[in-house]
Amino acid sequence: MKKFINDVSSIVDDTIEGFISIYGDIVKKVPDSRVIARKNIKQQRKTGIVIGNGAGHEPACIGFVGEGMLDGNAYGDIFSAPGPMHLLSAIKEADTGSGVLVLISNHAGDVMNSEMAVDMAKEDGIAVDSVLLYDDILSAPASQFRQRRGTAGTVFTYKIAGACAEEGKGLLEVKEIAERTRDRTRTITAALSPGISPLSKEPMFQIGEDEIQMGIGVHGEAAACVMKYESAQKTAVFMTEKILEDMEWSEGERMAVFVNGCGRTTYMELMIFYNEVRKFLKSKGIKLLRPLTGNFVTTQEMAGIALSVCRMDPEMETYWNRKTDTAAFPW
Amino acid sequence: MKKFINDVSSIVDDTIEGFISIYGDIVKKVPDSRVIARKNIKQQRKTGIVIGNGAGHEPACIGFVGEGMLDGNAYGDIFSAPGPMHLLSAIKEADTGSGVLVLISNHAGDVMNSEMAVDMAKEDGIAVDSVLLYDDILSAPASQFRQRRGTAGTVFTYKIAGACAEEGKGLLEVKEIAERTRDRTRTITAALSPGISPLSKEPMFQIGEDEIQMGIGVHGEAAACVMKYESAQKTAVFMTEKILEDMEWSEGERMAVFVNGCGRTTYMELMIFYNEVRKFLKSKGIKLLRPLTGNFVTTQEMAGIALSVCRMDPEMETYWNRKTDTAAFPW
Repeated sequence: MKKFINDVSSIVDDTIEGFISIYGDIVKKVPDSRVIARKNIKQQRKTGIVIGNGAGHEPACIGFVGEGMLDGNAYGDIFSAPGPMHLLSAIKEADTGSGVLVLISNHAGDVMNSEMAVDMAKEDGIAVDSVLLYDDILSAPASQFRQRRGTAGTVFTYKIAGACAEEGKGLLEVKEIAERTRDRTRTITAALSPGISPLSKEPMFQIGEDEIQMGIGVHGEAAACVMKYESAQKTAVFMTEKILEDMEWSEGERMAVFVNGCGRTTYMELMIFYNEVRKFLKSKGIKLLRPLTGNFVTTQEMAGIALSVCRMDPEMETYWNRKTDTAAFPW
Repeated sequence: MKKFINDVSSIVDDTIEGFISIYGDIVKKVPDSRVIARKNIKQQRKTGIVIGNGAGHEPACIGFVGEGMLDGNAYGDIFSAPGPMHLLSAIKEADTGSGVLVLISNHAGDVMNSEMAVDMAKEDGIAVDSVLLYDDILSAPASQFRQRRGTAGTVFTYKIAGACAEEGKGLLEVKEIAERTRDRTRTITAALSPGISPLSKEPMFQIGEDEIQMGIGVHGEAAACVMKYESAQKTAVFMTEKILEDMEWSEGERMAVFVNGCGRTTYMELMIFYNEVRKFLKSKGIKLLRPLTGNFVTTQEMAGIALSVCRMDPEMETYWNRKTDTAAFPW
């Protein structure tokens, strides 16, 4: 399988070089580490927000670094968590004297390396805390929700905690709203066709021609169940029902929907799918807030949709709507 | 091949319904026709800008309707030009008494139907004019440049003419800058894998596993040549050289690059490819302006890159940089 790349070993560094050449007015690469950080961050004083993730999910998370969202992103090899020294470098870069919150998407390597970096930062005298993010409801039952994987729904936390920090709130408050957003977010992913690993150049998993895989992870982790391919309407209703079953909610509540394309999902499909989710939630008496639609948290060119729903309160809603200045977030 | 759709016959209308439900603050559907128009356009007086295109290329062109870009988009069936009555409806909607410019991407159906609509609008007393857009250098030799197809590079014209109209310029001036932008734009497209037609549910063409097809059209029109698959660096240099050979330019000139993904092209590949184009143009003494990178003019989930280069003068540069308020244009 072909991609527009040079040597496989230089994919991530080539990506960063191109990215910085375009968005150098808002981001920079931190010297001697693979960290994308907000430019001029040291000129203000704010709670820093940092995350580490493997490459291959772009624009997540490099595209979310900037005003009103993330201050630093430690960027690993493809589908591989960045090392603790890179995370430490991101924390130091994001520290303006007001402390740093490390967001951790729940995957073993990310958790281990982020926790090591947090410990090292504490030893260096930085006020640092972390929040573990998990939103994929098909990766573990509700009784073991802390085992659930982090997936596309983490974007709600980046956005809302990021806006909260930008408004000058302290580390404790930013941590609290990050946890609140996580606790009110649920995600379920449906895959139609696999992405191609840039390393092996092979499809990352197999899907039958008449199948949808439900609950697949952002690195192609095994699906929870395989279903027969159905219309967008039936698929959307199935997924939205699963999400509503997994959380407490009441009629009249305000929710934001994120229809995330997993890479190759066309704009048409995103619009059609969102429309079905919208109609179903409306029929349940739910008030819909500004939605997010697009290929944001990708698994290379996987055909799939991660549907994420976040129950908002007025404070979260204000932060959700706040403008950002990033490469990829659309407002 | 699977997609998140309902009945094939409702794809376009379902897409529009979802799109309007999200972006209803900036666009609306014109009743009784398949036209997406800027909301509240009648509240100001400006030169209107309209285009028609078949569906299947989203976010083009529905995502470019809004302040600072297009006023109306007549939206056909999949890969099929909208009928003249829809185009006429778009023209009428965009007419605020200052005339309307119809942009026509050079494809037989679009040309025929747009010209019919222009004639009908004239009969209705609307001041209307049109500009034919052609930018695909591999679709016809330089000696027959008016036969060239319209492709991704048309976005430069939408953006620059749109900003010019927004600044209050008259129909003649907007037409002149649309023609100037077209004359200074060149595009070449490289495909790695086909998109899937939502109608036939089959790949739209075939590409050998070790091949790149150069010069393929936005509807999968036959490639001009088939090349051996090469690195992003070699492919980017080959394509950029072809573009430079096709136009007059001089060292020190200012150009903007558009690296358009054709559907499933990953963010990494867009960054890597742009980086190679940038380095090559820099080595030629060219000053690079703000680039555009992303999957904007798509052929469903085709893997490919349309490289477009526009030689800017100071006036065009100002309009290129001007902010828009649309669903899809990034600034």
